[in-house]
Amino acid sequence: MDAERVIAAAQAVETPVATVDVTAMESNLAAMQARANARGLALRPHAKTHKSAFVARRQLEHGATGLTAATLTEAEVFAAAGAGDLLIAFPPVGEMKLRRLAALAERVGRLAVSTDSVEVAAALPEQVEVLWEVDSGHHRVGTAPGEATVAGVTALVAAIGMERFRGLLTFPGHAYAVADRAELARVAQAEQQVMLETAAQLRAAGIAVRELSVGSTPTASWTQAGPTEMRPGSYVYGDAQQVVLGAMTVEECALGVVATVVSTPASDRAVIDAGSKALAADARLSLLRGYGIAAGHQDLVLERMSEEHGMLVATGGRTGLRIGDRLLVIPAHCCTTVNLHPAVLMVEAGRAWWDPVAARGWQAIAAGTPGPPGVVDGATRLGG
Amino acid sequence: MDAERVIAAAQAVETPVATVDVTAMESNLAAMQARANARGLALRPHAKTHKSAFVARRQLEHGATGLTAATLTEAEVFAAAGAGDLLIAFPPVGEMKLRRLAALAERVGRLAVSTDSVEVAAALPEQVEVLWEVDSGHHRVGTAPGEATVAGVTALVAAIGMERFRGLLTFPGHAYAVADRAELARVAQAEQQVMLETAAQLRAAGIAVRELSVGSTPTASWTQAGPTEMRPGSYVYGDAQQVVLGAMTVEECALGVVATVVSTPASDRAVIDAGSKALAADARLSLLRGYGIAAGHQDLVLERMSEEHGMLVATGGRTGLRIGDRLLVIPAHCCTTVNLHPAVLMVEAGRAWWDPVAARGWQAIAAGTPGPPGVVDGATRLGG
Repeated sequence: MDAERVIAAAQAVETPVATVDVTAMESNLAAMQARANARGLALRPHAKTHKSAFVARRQLEHGATGLTAATLTEAEVFAAAGAGDLLIAFPPVGEMKLRRLAALAERVGRLAVSTDSVEVAAALPEQVEVLWEVDSGHHRVGTAPGEATVAGVTALVAAIGMERFRGLLTFPGHAYAVADRAELARVAQAEQQVMLETAAQLRAAGIAVRELSVGSTPTASWTQAGPTEMRPGSYVYGDAQQVVLGAMTVEECALGVVATVVSTPASDRAVIDAGSKALAADARLSLLRGYGIAAGHQDLVLERMSEEHGMLVATGGRTGLRIGDRLLVIPAHCCTTVNLHPAVLMVEAGRAWWDPVAARGWQAIAAGTPGPPGVVDGATRLGG
Repeated sequence: MDAERVIAAAQAVETPVATVDVTAMESNLAAMQARANARGLALRPHAKTHKSAFVARRQLEHGATGLTAATLTEAEVFAAAGAGDLLIAFPPVGEMKLRRLAALAERVGRLAVSTDSVEVAAALPEQVEVLWEVDSGHHRVGTAPGEATVAGVTALVAAIGMERFRGLLTFPGHAYAVADRAELARVAQAEQQVMLETAAQLRAAGIAVRELSVGSTPTASWTQAGPTEMRPGSYVYGDAQQVVLGAMTVEECALGVVATVVSTPASDRAVIDAGSKALAADARLSLLRGYGIAAGHQDLVLERMSEEHGMLVATGGRTGLRIGDRLLVIPAHCCTTVNLHPAVLMVEAGRAWWDPVAARGWQAIAAGTPGPPGVVDGATRLGG
């Protein structure tokens, strides 16, 4: 990231403002695509990181086979942006979501969801394929590898038919809680091993496994063929968490939040106008020394945040900051930070422009009402 | 909160959805106003909690003298909703913000900001009054009580004139980090004592102090006259953090997030469709046993969250939950949770309706562009 160029471009607007160095982003898109290509893996980026129609198109233009979404709103926005092959990596539950899913299936060529439940799968529209979710150690959604998964998938194919079972999916989210790179490598290797072994068991039981979908940004360095596709998300923008994990460098990070110093109450402390409503506070502080990295200020730690205040502390005793100074903070977690902003300022050489975070919440499909799909008392009334 | 009524009202809409039990909210508004009235204090609620024009009006109708805002967008939204007396409890820095502030000053009868900087104060439009911020222990913005504050205010009145100095302000944010109620009482009492002592020093120096503005929801029980106004925010909705602090009961909490069970991977674990993009993850886990309280399910702990997943663990060994079940979660922190939602579902006896979270980010003032005020390269281009 070229922090100076980004800060200069943001001079024209108020702070706090989320920014993207497009050059760094493009480099990240190209590098992950090259990594996938070199290993013969399909790349299906998790687009929940950016929630942007523009960035979704750039991922497809770089060669992604399709996109991963976490919500129906995201899937709808990416479909409208031209994505014809979507995976919703979240179990769709409830009649309203199933109706939206059916409508979406009419609009895209290829649609799948992941679940660990035959009940959820059996309720899906018949155009929708299923990836069965395996718990490779994150203990979120998913059946245990081996027998439990074989039993689940056997019941699944009995319920929806072999042709709608696409394969297995896992998310190694425990990669974010490792102590060091050696443990990260073990998590990545174990993820692939349990997926390959479980797929072999399914095949031995006569069940075709067409897809083995794995991955995350921190484990991407170790992902090899065997799995058929990888789904990293954060790599597009990067963040302080990825830097701490050793998965990306500060220079590779594309997302920042430009903030202004509004108070200098002590020589070793300064307050910026970006708090937990501009920089996500779901960071893992065991890994980070604070809530983000102040670009070009290695001596400053974003030690605490309130909703609108960020407290920078100088490890060297003096911040050297004055009221009105602007800094660029690389957030701890890019996905949740982007979700706090209606739009990000895209900064390129010679120009900057606003890219809406179009798939936030249910705004995208709120046709004339501020609410999500569904009827409330037969009428929707705006507040007041 | 009547969780059953709220869940029933939310049946018509998709989850996750933020909900407000209007009866509980009205009771909270009345109780805090009665508390302020009984002690002869003005109540100036911090409206950053709700960011809603409707709720702002209800606070004024209950008897609030004015409102506190954290951002210019909030102040603009509340002014448009009819508030004629606003305090922006955040230092406005930068030309664009000062222009907006000047325009706002033309529209409201009474406008003040808080700062700890003569430089910031001197740049303000002359219709704007100043509250000098004192650091009563939170170590955010503010000068130390006593001499440092007397020196600061002396310089302030020299720069902007005695008549524009309204008084002193403090925020006892360290109240959220106490170990127990006894420590909370000490924080609240110390807050008032340093404010009274510092005001006495200023008066001895010939400086009129018209306002002593204090408070927060957890310290509100101890706030007495002496201070002239109190600025609690969270009391309107309540949250798990207030419950853990002993400041509010579960029954008094008005805000919830209704979520659906989407996976039951183990008998003691269930996954709901509300994660850190629906329930704020800035909770203090040292005080909470998780990220929120599942109403009516005292045996369930919201132990972990991903962006769209919430992991409920049963302390008794069995969640008893099935896929499709809906629960109401009282979030750890109401202010940051509300900020994640475009609107909240207001539930009253017999009806429900959408209340927009109108003052989120800079959406409110984004006239035709998704960006905040400011010109980017002379033109604004939508993404893609």
